[in-house]
Amino acid sequence: MAANIARMQGRMDALGVRFRPHVKTAKCLEVARRQVAAGARGLTVSTLKEAECFFAAGYGDILYAVAIAPPKFDHALRLAKAGVRLTVVVESVAAAERLSRHGRENGHVHTVLIEVDTDGHRSGIHPEAPALLDVAAALTVEGGGGARLSGVMTHAGSSYGLNTPEALTAMAEQERAGCVRAAERLRAAGHACPVVSVGSTPTALSARHLEGVTEVRAGVYVFFDLVMAGVGVCTVDDIALSVLCTVIGHRADTGWVITDGGWMAMSRDRGTQRQTKDYGYGLVAAADGTPIADLAFRDANQEHGVLHWTGAVGTDLEALFPIGTQLRILPNHACATAAQFDAYTVLPKDGGDLQRWGRFNGW
Amino acid sequence: MAANIARMQGRMDALGVRFRPHVKTAKCLEVARRQVAAGARGLTVSTLKEAECFFAAGYGDILYAVAIAPPKFDHALRLAKAGVRLTVVVESVAAAERLSRHGRENGHVHTVLIEVDTDGHRSGIHPEAPALLDVAAALTVEGGGGARLSGVMTHAGSSYGLNTPEALTAMAEQERAGCVRAAERLRAAGHACPVVSVGSTPTALSARHLEGVTEVRAGVYVFFDLVMAGVGVCTVDDIALSVLCTVIGHRADTGWVITDGGWMAMSRDRGTQRQTKDYGYGLVAAADGTPIADLAFRDANQEHGVLHWTGAVGTDLEALFPIGTQLRILPNHACATAAQFDAYTVLPKDGGDLQRWGRFNGW
Repeated sequence: MAANIARMQGRMDALGVRFRPHVKTAKCLEVARRQVAAGARGLTVSTLKEAECFFAAGYGDILYAVAIAPPKFDHALRLAKAGVRLTVVVESVAAAERLSRHGRENGHVHTVLIEVDTDGHRSGIHPEAPALLDVAAALTVEGGGGARLSGVMTHAGSSYGLNTPEALTAMAEQERAGCVRAAERLRAAGHACPVVSVGSTPTALSARHLEGVTEVRAGVYVFFDLVMAGVGVCTVDDIALSVLCTVIGHRADTGWVITDGGWMAMSRDRGTQRQTKDYGYGLVAAADGTPIADLAFRDANQEHGVLHWTGAVGTDLEALFPIGTQLRILPNHACATAAQFDAYTVLPKDGGDLQRWGRFNGW
Repeated sequence: MAANIARMQGRMDALGVRFRPHVKTAKCLEVARRQVAAGARGLTVSTLKEAECFFAAGYGDILYAVAIAPPKFDHALRLAKAGVRLTVVVESVAAAERLSRHGRENGHVHTVLIEVDTDGHRSGIHPEAPALLDVAAALTVEGGGGARLSGVMTHAGSSYGLNTPEALTAMAEQERAGCVRAAERLRAAGHACPVVSVGSTPTALSARHLEGVTEVRAGVYVFFDLVMAGVGVCTVDDIALSVLCTVIGHRADTGWVITDGGWMAMSRDRGTQRQTKDYGYGLVAAADGTPIADLAFRDANQEHGVLHWTGAVGTDLEALFPIGTQLRILPNHACATAAQFDAYTVLPKDGGDLQRWGRFNGW
């Protein structure tokens, strides 16, 4: 994890942009502390609960990177009034107008980024769409409006579906160029647009330059996972999160090794299913982290993992993996697996006793 | 939920068997209280943490229904010494021998069921396998052993893959007959075998008779879900668990409605993927529970749901589902979705204010 943090921050420093890590992956104060110590400035969150928890721990500059809807306006207001320098996101005239009205009615000016769609992945406004200027027009403090346009943000989430350096570099440039173009249109229309925020782990690590971008966001890089290894932005060795489980049974007839680590521990995320290498529910390794190529994690029940032996027929699995053997499973998707737990057991970088770092979940 | 509890208990009463609900689905004291009030006797758990939490709340008779391995022996012992009437499960000679030794070395006699495999689904010993008697022989208090054979248990998990009443009834009979046969072999070999425990929600609701069975276990029936509706043991109307989310955006070009309910809220469970009707990440309904046939929950990110409009082209989705609209999503798999939350918001059966019922997660 320490190496992953250093690598990402080093890359951002080299590209000359501010780095605002997405804390939705770890939801852990100890992790965020290390990201900030390495040079990160400000945090990105996926829920207002994360904003609340990180603010309570002293982090004041927070971007809530999911388009905000009216039921959350009051919560955002409470956080801002408590002292959070909170930035929220909109991607429609309707949301912008209602947010501005909400701010005005409550004597507050919300700080807002417009979400830009640079890859057709999910949400946001196309950089060339007329709606971009309409949304900006609705975010104004002139005439007593309660929301101020601070800039634009985008997330090229479709980068998760790529797996060559060329495609990743091209997607990073597409993400950058689209977001910068949206900012230029806004500025040409007379809007201040100081923030140009882009990012995903694959594009952040693949960008050649980030001209016009002021900050980058990325989350899963902190742990990495098998999906990211499949995309090609890390190796299996870089993966800093694993689930330790125990062998509880065998089936000689089917060649199965049964563990007490099922989908409740791994999550149901099958993110490598569409990749070149499908790891099932995770990559099986010995407790020391050495991958076991001949055990495939093919099926999972709530508290049972079903590992299929793919090695030599007739192998004595009870002798090779006796009842009680511990196995370490690397996850498909770190965000999903970590969310199944309320704490991390941490191996200190420089040795010493295992530590326990809490995390939080929920909304 | 109240109707689901009444239905299952009524069926068990009619079949003349003791019902031991599996509390892994809800992990909620308020839910268990209602199951017991309806007539359930004893609880089934999937983790020793559940045993701990339910014992702390006054439930003393607990079956830990996952084969136990040596790293958990001490925990089981602590629970037993604290007063839990804890039954554990083994399915190998190795585990039986080590458990017996552990009991002896700690002045305790573990109460044990042998897991029987009646459908090739996962773990357990085939009813006709010689190993059944070997495991039983290792579970003996004669000569100072520290484990006592209490009976047999099985779980016909492959019933989840069926979808006709005929196949379900046949599987229920296969589960019953296999487990009873294992008990008979044990008794013929001179072992007391008072407990014959079977169950899964589909087989429990499909059994014609349960001759020779002493208790049934089932869990997901308490909430039901889309997978169970696909299996055919409930209707969509019976589903008692849902996730309320909010519309946060639209894409007119692709016909998408974006919500703030992604896989973190629904879980990544895609249990209906292999069924006749694939519900994506869940069945979309209006806030009042009325299904919306033309919105398909096709994709999910961590905090984003992507609903695809499948109705008339050109429909004004912003007008039909304005920003801020609340939608209710019925889950594929209640166990997985509920585990993403630390509490339930409960609609009292007889009206009145919403209640909050906590649940627990983890190990």
